[in-house]
This record gives sequence, C-alpha cells and structure tokens, in this order.
Amino acid sequence: VSIALVHHPVLDRDGQVIVTAVTNLDVHDLARSARTYAVKNVFIVHPVEAQRELIGKVTRHWTEGAGGKRIPDRIAAMERVRIVPALDEVLGALGAQAEVWTTAASASGETLSFQAARAIAATDGPPILLVYGTGWGLAEPVHARATARLAPIAGRDGWNHLSVRAAVAISLDRLLGA
Amino acid sequence: VSIALVHHPVLDRDGQVIVTAVTNLDVHDLARSARTYAVKNVFIVHPVEAQRELIGKVTRHWTEGAGGKRIPDRIAAMERVRIVPALDEVLGALGAQAEVWTTAASASGETLSFQAARAIAATDGPPILLVYGTGWGLAEPVHARATARLAPIAGRDGWNHLSVRAAVAISLDRLLGA
Repeated sequence: VSIALVHHPVLDRDGQVIVTAVTNLDVHDLARSARTYAVKNVFIVHPVEAQRELIGKVTRHWTEGAGGKRIPDRIAAMERVRIVPALDEVLGALGAQAEVWTTAASASGETLSFQAARAIAATDGPPILLVYGTGWGLAEPVHARATARLAPIAGRDGWNHLSVRAAVAISLDRLLGA
Repeated sequence: VSIALVHHPVLDRDGQVIVTAVTNLDVHDLARSARTYAVKNVFIVHPVEAQRELIGKVTRHWTEGAGGKRIPDRIAAMERVRIVPALDEVLGALGAQAEVWTTAASASGETLSFQAARAIAATDGPPILLVYGTGWGLAEPVHARATARLAPIAGRDGWNHLSVRAAVAISLDRLLGA
C-alpha cells in the first residue's frame, strides 16, 4: 500500500480547480502515519518545481540532515516521502494492474466500503494507492482515473471536515490497523 | 466525551518535564476531529498566560471573526475549544465520577483496550475525558491521576511515533466511529 497527497488538481471552496501550497506538517504527519502502518511510499504530488524543491529540502533535513540526528525515529518515516510533479507518474510506476482508490469527504456514486477495502488490502494482490486531496478535495478528473472511490469517513452526524492529516490517519488505521 | 491536550507537564525526548509551545494546527485538527465524532469539549491545557491568550485569539478568529466568515464550517469545530491553565481545572469541572483516560505511545502497566473503552463510551455513564500529551508524551503524575490508561495505538511492528493530531483522530474513530 502507498499513499499520495495531491496539490493539483484539487478544488477550492467554490469548486474551482486550484494548486494548493505545501503544508510542512502534512508531510510529517503522513510520513509518520505511513511508517506506523508499514505503508511504503508517501507520494507528494505538486506541479510547481519550487514547491517540490522545498519538500525535498525538508525531507532531506529529516533523513540525512540535522533533524534526523536530533530525532532519529523520524528518519524511518520521512524516508518514505517521494516527490513527484503529477499523479500520472505515480500511476505509471505502480503499473496498470494497481488498485487506485481515491478519497473524498462526501459520497458520490458507488463507493468501496472500508470493510471491503480492508479485505482486499489483506490479500497478496496488486499494489494499492490511496489518493488524498488537499484544499477542498480531489478534482473530478482524479476520481475518474480511480479503480474505486473509498467510502467517506462517517462521523456522528454528517459533518465532514476532517483535516487531511486526520483523514489519512483514520483511513490507514481502518484499512491496516491491528 | 471530552478531550484534553496537555502542554505541561509533558516530557521531552530525554524524559525531562517541560512546557511545550502551542501548535496552531493541533488546535484546528483536534477541534475538527472532535466535531466529527460529536466530542463536546477540546480542552487546551497551557500554564503560560501569553500562550493561552494566543490560542484564544486564534479560536475567536474562527468562531466570531474573519476566519469563520470565510469558512463557516470551521465554527462548529472551533467553538468546542476551551482554554485552561491546568488539568486540575478540567477534572474539577467534570466531577469526581468522571472517567479520565490518559494516552501514551507505549504501554506501561495495565491498559484499557479500545474495545472495552468503546463499550464504556457507548453507555450513558459518567463523563469521559481523553487526555493527550504534546512533546514526548504525558508526564507520569498525569497518568497517576487517571482512572485508566488507554492502550497504545498499535501499528504494524511497534514503531510508535504518530503525531498527536493522528493519534487523536485514530482514537476518536476507534472509540466513537460508525
């Protein structure tokens, strides 16, 4: 299982397609959640070169630099981070047989339940990529390329504005937790 | 159910008791996770007045100010934030019959399983307070005041360095999720 955090194409609160800026804590939190659940790759997808360079700098600080020396446990998390300009590159690397599951805060059409997804993840099948959007979520063309859309995380009464950091943590625990 | 995020007394990576600085995204993420699972109160515990004032300013920006006007959904999350100087104040407000469950990344002594905790949370019993530490976790005197210590979140192979934002999200989902 791998995860991808997409910064474009994603939506703003008016439904327009935008590019979002990188949030430093997203990279840390996703890498730490990935390490916890033995997720191999954390793809940070960003079309802007300067932003990719920034993420690379931050990541190296924690894998090879002073950050990792100070907090060695962070190395095993941050070394999972891969920086790519577009989701295409990730899909190409994983191959045509990969399961690509997009995520969204609200349901639209048919969705894959966490129970069914957990059963698939437990088999020795093709690679699985979980795709998360920043901003107000993934734009429709990303969902269109998925093999399935994961069910939204249901809270108590339909309010669905978890942070992407929380959504990644909860979904990895539901899919891969003990 | 309420949650508390403690900034003192917590440990640094050498096991010394310290005061940590407030992280803005902690407040947002915990409030959003709390709203998702219908958790009523997010107590931010900080002994330093200037830090409490800062959190108050941030919170008001999102409940009464420009932030809430721009992103109205955030109001229902951020209005749950309560700022207190010490955990004593929270325990006093909840009363002597409250269940106080501390959390830690590693087990020590007897712990309450998530399954058992979920069953207790589902009953119409006394109030429950989940207590989370910043830094390298809660200092022992906080655990000593608890009615139980919640089981650590087990990943795949014992690596236990989730962010507190992820740990809160996962534990609320395990205890209160659909």
